Amino acid sequence: MLHKFRIVLVNTSHPGNIGGAARAMKTMGLSRLVLVQPEIFPSEIADARASGATDLLQSAQVVNSLDEALVGCQLVLGTSARERHIPWPLLEPRAAAERCGACTQQGGEVALVFGREHAGLTNEELQRCHIHIHIPSDPNFASLNLAAAVQVLAYELRLVALSAEKDSVAPVHTPDPDTQPVTADELEQFYQHLEQTLIDIRFLDPERPRHLMARLRRLYGRADIERLEMNILRGILTETRKIARQSIT
Amino acid sequence: MLHKFRIVLVNTSHPGNIGGAARAMKTMGLSRLVLVQPEIFPSEIADARASGATDLLQSAQVVNSLDEALVGCQLVLGTSARERHIPWPLLEPRAAAERCGACTQQGGEVALVFGREHAGLTNEELQRCHIHIHIPSDPNFASLNLAAAVQVLAYELRLVALSAEKDSVAPVHTPDPDTQPVTADELEQFYQHLEQTLIDIRFLDPERPRHLMARLRRLYGRADIERLEMNILRGILTETRKIARQSIT
Repeated sequence: MLHKFRIVLVNTSHPGNIGGAARAMKTMGLSRLVLVQPEIFPSEIADARASGATDLLQSAQVVNSLDEALVGCQLVLGTSARERHIPWPLLEPRAAAERCGACTQQGGEVALVFGREHAGLTNEELQRCHIHIHIPSDPNFASLNLAAAVQVLAYELRLVALSAEKDSVAPVHTPDPDTQPVTADELEQFYQHLEQTLIDIRFLDPERPRHLMARLRRLYGRADIERLEMNILRGILTETRKIARQSIT
Repeated sequence: MLHKFRIVLVNTSHPGNIGGAARAMKTMGLSRLVLVQPEIFPSEIADARASGATDLLQSAQVVNSLDEALVGCQLVLGTSARERHIPWPLLEPRAAAERCGACTQQGGEVALVFGREHAGLTNEELQRCHIHIHIPSDPNFASLNLAAAVQVLAYELRLVALSAEKDSVAPVHTPDPDTQPVTADELEQFYQHLEQTLIDIRFLDPERPRHLMARLRRLYGRADIERLEMNILRGILTETRKIARQSIT
């Protein structure tokens, strides 16, 4: 199960934290590290902090955007220290890890996304996540070191994986493609299609978007949309846009 | 409860790890740090890694022996990476934290003891501990960073403390009407509105409905739609029907 998890670090400033995260991952049996625009990488400082986990740094994937980092993922979770305007599905690490385990047991891939050392993830990045994770830190001093946050989550993922192993009297299970959850990139395409449609029917004013798309992302992100359902939703949007083009404006 | 726990670091080599441990403690609401013969302390490197938790370093108690560090404790737990010759009560972090919580609720004080970066605790030191804790790391790469190990244990202690708090205080909770789930009849009205709209845009043929509405009910039924979200969805349907009426057929 553990190879289905990837750890995504966005825009990390300090290479020491990348090394520390790699070490934290390897102690918990995780191996897939994705770095979105790290400020300094590769780096001797990262290698030193990784101490026997430099192999994870060597095989780390370095990409230019969060989108690239998430290709192929069914479930995306983002860590968040702050309270947000728009309430979002928010889980503590333990419940989040259970959710991750359930997803991988259905064959899905999961990304855990960690933001910048000081600023965390942007609102836009957080909205790409289906679920936010909050490590229940002391409100008076909530700033976990990045590698420490990775350690806590990796630890919870490992516990879930170990417990699943223990339970596994392997069910023979051929997944039905129609009922497979869609991937994060398919979901993203749907949101773009939805947004364009709402503009076409003049429900969404691009000049004054308010939080409309964020709220819809939150709703649909919660629903674990399956492939066949996605086809239906996309079909409705296509028909709606067709009708909108024919309308007398 | 958290002030009853002390973290004891024995013979730490790298001052950065002392700083990292202080930061890990403070994020989880722990404050009492005891250092047994640290190699280098105080240190600017420790201060830098503590970032914001230097108060814990300033109030840290520096002592010459493990005995001194444990004065006043009812329960002593020691972290251990290796399998030992002598079988000893061994718990994983979660069970260990519960045991710690139970002890403090009876008024006891608890010490968690962490050994040297490379060599851990000596057999003699481990025998001073009532219970050994093993973080379930990958047997192929078991070497957690010292501060990372402190983070995992401090996190588990905090969860136990928060859960004890929750049990003792009734939550005062005023629900936000916007985030209340909709009622079954509101959901039913939505489905009728949706069905009518799909007919209007000619996506749904009432003569050949197939299982379209059933599938959509299943999808939206899963999403636990909140009131504000429902208002948005109904708004979209209303606009879509308006556009459909204006369209050239």
